Amino acid sequence: MKRHALLFASAMVGAIVFLLDGWAVDIGESIVMQGVPGKVAACATCHGAHGEGGGDGVYPRVAGQPAAYVETQLKAFRDGSRASQLMSPMAAGLSDSDISAVAVYLERQRPPFPAPPQATPSQLERGQGLVTIGRWEEGVLSCTSCHGATLQGVAPAIPSLAGQSAQYLSAQLRAYRDGQRSPGPLELMKRVARGMSSEDVEDAALYIASLRPGAQPEIPQPAKPQPYAARPQSPDAFVPPPDSAIPAGPYGDLVRLGQSIFQDTPKHARQYAGNTLSCRNCHLDRGRDAQSSPMWAAYVHYPEYRKKDGLVNTIQMRIQGCFRYSQNGIVPEADSRELTALVTYAYWMASGLPVGVKPKAAGYPKLDPPAAIPSPERGAKVYATRCALCHGADGLGRSGGGEQVFPPLWGPQSFNWGAGMHQTDRAASFIKTNMPYGAGGTLTDQEAWDVAAYVNSRPRPQDPRFIENVEKTRVLYHSDHEYDYYGREVDGLVLGAPGTLEQWEKNNREKNR
Amino acid sequence: MKRHALLFASAMVGAIVFLLDGWAVDIGESIVMQGVPGKVAACATCHGAHGEGGGDGVYPRVAGQPAAYVETQLKAFRDGSRASQLMSPMAAGLSDSDISAVAVYLERQRPPFPAPPQATPSQLERGQGLVTIGRWEEGVLSCTSCHGATLQGVAPAIPSLAGQSAQYLSAQLRAYRDGQRSPGPLELMKRVARGMSSEDVEDAALYIASLRPGAQPEIPQPAKPQPYAARPQSPDAFVPPPDSAIPAGPYGDLVRLGQSIFQDTPKHARQYAGNTLSCRNCHLDRGRDAQSSPMWAAYVHYPEYRKKDGLVNTIQMRIQGCFRYSQNGIVPEADSRELTALVTYAYWMASGLPVGVKPKAAGYPKLDPPAAIPSPERGAKVYATRCALCHGADGLGRSGGGEQVFPPLWGPQSFNWGAGMHQTDRAASFIKTNMPYGAGGTLTDQEAWDVAAYVNSRPRPQDPRFIENVEKTRVLYHSDHEYDYYGREVDGLVLGAPGTLEQWEKNNREKNR
Repeated sequence: MKRHALLFASAMVGAIVFLLDGWAVDIGESIVMQGVPGKVAACATCHGAHGEGGGDGVYPRVAGQPAAYVETQLKAFRDGSRASQLMSPMAAGLSDSDISAVAVYLERQRPPFPAPPQATPSQLERGQGLVTIGRWEEGVLSCTSCHGATLQGVAPAIPSLAGQSAQYLSAQLRAYRDGQRSPGPLELMKRVARGMSSEDVEDAALYIASLRPGAQPEIPQPAKPQPYAARPQSPDAFVPPPDSAIPAGPYGDLVRLGQSIFQDTPKHARQYAGNTLSCRNCHLDRGRDAQSSPMWAAYVHYPEYRKKDGLVNTIQMRIQGCFRYSQNGIVPEADSRELTALVTYAYWMASGLPVGVKPKAAGYPKLDPPAAIPSPERGAKVYATRCALCHGADGLGRSGGGEQVFPPLWGPQSFNWGAGMHQTDRAASFIKTNMPYGAGGTLTDQEAWDVAAYVNSRPRPQDPRFIENVEKTRVLYHSDHEYDYYGREVDGLVLGAPGTLEQWEKNNREKNR
Repeated sequence: MKRHALLFASAMVGAIVFLLDGWAVDIGESIVMQGVPGKVAACATCHGAHGEGGGDGVYPRVAGQPAAYVETQLKAFRDGSRASQLMSPMAAGLSDSDISAVAVYLERQRPPFPAPPQATPSQLERGQGLVTIGRWEEGVLSCTSCHGATLQGVAPAIPSLAGQSAQYLSAQLRAYRDGQRSPGPLELMKRVARGMSSEDVEDAALYIASLRPGAQPEIPQPAKPQPYAARPQSPDAFVPPPDSAIPAGPYGDLVRLGQSIFQDTPKHARQYAGNTLSCRNCHLDRGRDAQSSPMWAAYVHYPEYRKKDGLVNTIQMRIQGCFRYSQNGIVPEADSRELTALVTYAYWMASGLPVGVKPKAAGYPKLDPPAAIPSPERGAKVYATRCALCHGADGLGRSGGGEQVFPPLWGPQSFNWGAGMHQTDRAASFIKTNMPYGAGGTLTDQEAWDVAAYVNSRPRPQDPRFIENVEKTRVLYHSDHEYDYYGREVDGLVLGAPGTLEQWEKNNREKNR
């Protein structure tokens, strides 16, 4: 009886949620199509019936934007924190629930893209470079870094650029540059826009506007091979060859496969990936970046003895460790196609580096011991202001356009308790040099230690070396590093104990109900 | 009935051989102990009852010498081609069968070694370097190259040096140098002795005389690491680090294991070796020699696409190919300890070499196409005079002191029909640069082509890629290179056809009966 009542109640809740949702969409459609009588003009007047934009590119495409982003913008128009003579009066006439309804309606629209703009091949080529590579030495991150590989945006905070007009995109970049638009989260867009010339702005906007729906901009292949680096590298650092130097033929094909696996491991090494992380999440710029464990440095470093498994590790064995721990997955055979592809990619990147010699300026420096014992509580505050934008307040990362754009830092889809990154000292050093993405070095040492402690005192998947119980496993594998939270009690849960991750997920579901 | 008669005959032959053998030993013992009355003094007078030598080192140890070597020497004393006022009259009194009997008796004796000579540590250190490394740029091959790792000699032509007195050894080296002793096979000993100073001669002799029975001289570890090369290398050639640079600890242990496998594959990779060849037989100087496919060059060359298996090969996969074909064995797993050790050894040797860049002066140059079509018949003559000393007239190589000192070039213990070396062009190029050992470059191009054709038109183990029949296998795998004898008929046998190798072995047994 009880069971049936529960099922019935559950079904009713589901039905109500469904109906409310549909109701909001209906209200949203009504406001978009007809406005709010006497207060707000129909959105469709300028932005089109399906949010496709209008006025020959003056009025932006608002279709397909993350609802939370549209909500934030409409509220910003309403309270004046985003200035617009046109939009502010409209937003003033909308209630919070009107705004939500409009945002939800627009998020679901998929009108066709406008016709691509007139642009010369050289404009598109320059734009492609800025969009996919950027010019980090002047603060210009690539657009794809945050807006996703297909520029479709990442909920909740990062808007879609896909299908937007060149006119609107360049107007916004100029507004960021000139301070007419608030600098955005982490002031990233202000920094990006200030690093761009008027020509840069125009070319990047033209290139984005020329993309077709779902198209993934490719990293350009300059006619004359020239190295590039996604962010400023030490002049002493080794520069791996550019993608354009990958030769044709089966060898080059395998290099490219390795690069694809590196870029999107769950997609290209599906049978081995145990979570949504990709190699590039720790080895930035697809393993090229000198400051975050570059793969070219690893290639010339192995075979080497590792205390972790008590064996001399070949590069294959070392990468197997990544699959076992960081990707919480299945270990590929040493001669599997996937592992061979990754090794071949690393070999290709290491072209010209001397074997067995530690390359200069490779890796991130080890942070000094912390002045104060790392505090997860302090770290939580750093996390909220500097990390949550990309990794989510819940630590579960952010997806957009079908890909994991920002990696989960804890929870079921993150690295497990055996991964090197679960060591607070390792994570703190990585974070200090590399995070926030595009603004490495801006945290104090203590902030880096604290936020690493926060991240690594959250639940994550079990250590594959788990034996008998959490105490024994802690003694065997978690007693070498200070500030290792494995086996410690945090928020009433013993980290690493069987069932902890599941309990934590259950608590989250209940909290969010 | 017939079967019983055959068995009986066979048993009788065996018994007669055994009796004749014992009879020869008895005659030999009698001559050694008592001489030939009225003609020959007892050998024991000077050389000791068991051939241990005497006269405080003036009279050599003749015990344990290959019987064939003693026979050759006694006959040389008898006909004057080896001059000795003392020995010539003695030998003159011995018949051929007397000589055989004495030689067989002496070969079986194992008297204790004499007391080691007085020598300073620096004399022994210099001697050790000459004995184990040599000084090839002046023609001084290491003694161990030909006399075997324990210097116990290699039947039939290479005498044991172990247990010999320093006095006798240095006297012989001086005799070779001054032309008082005939120059020996391939004139090798003359060239060696002429490259040695009086001090060299003394130190090498002292070092050999200081060795205990069965001791294997180690390659010295100079206090200050310095590169060495076993033979003159191009000044452009990369020089791998010296053995003394192998570090202590598990990484160094694995480098040393790899080196041991390289040195004696059947011993240290027993479960994978399918014949008596070792890696060092093709990759001279334990994979260090620049002119014979050095392993350091291979290390930086792979991963690379290979047409042979249609795959991008890692260094592991490439070495697996050696086990499959050259060693006619079992392929070790990519992450087996043995293969990891070989890769780690190659990695260590490549220290400092740039990844993916072809090292200068590495490998042997490809020979120009031959002026005349390579002729196995002409090659047989080259082989007899320039190769058979070490590899045997039967091509089966030579063993001594429990190790395969010179590799078999055909027959059941040699590389199979899938190995790279079975290609006449490959073999000819290798031979031209590297053979005869210690005298590379002394054959004409045509001689190299001819002798390669001779070697590679002999039977050897089946190609592991064999499919259906020899014709199909030839089309699939043996049509890319000119002068590939696989599937060709030679001496009435179709090379590579099932049963050919067994038939050839049977013919040999019958011939030798």
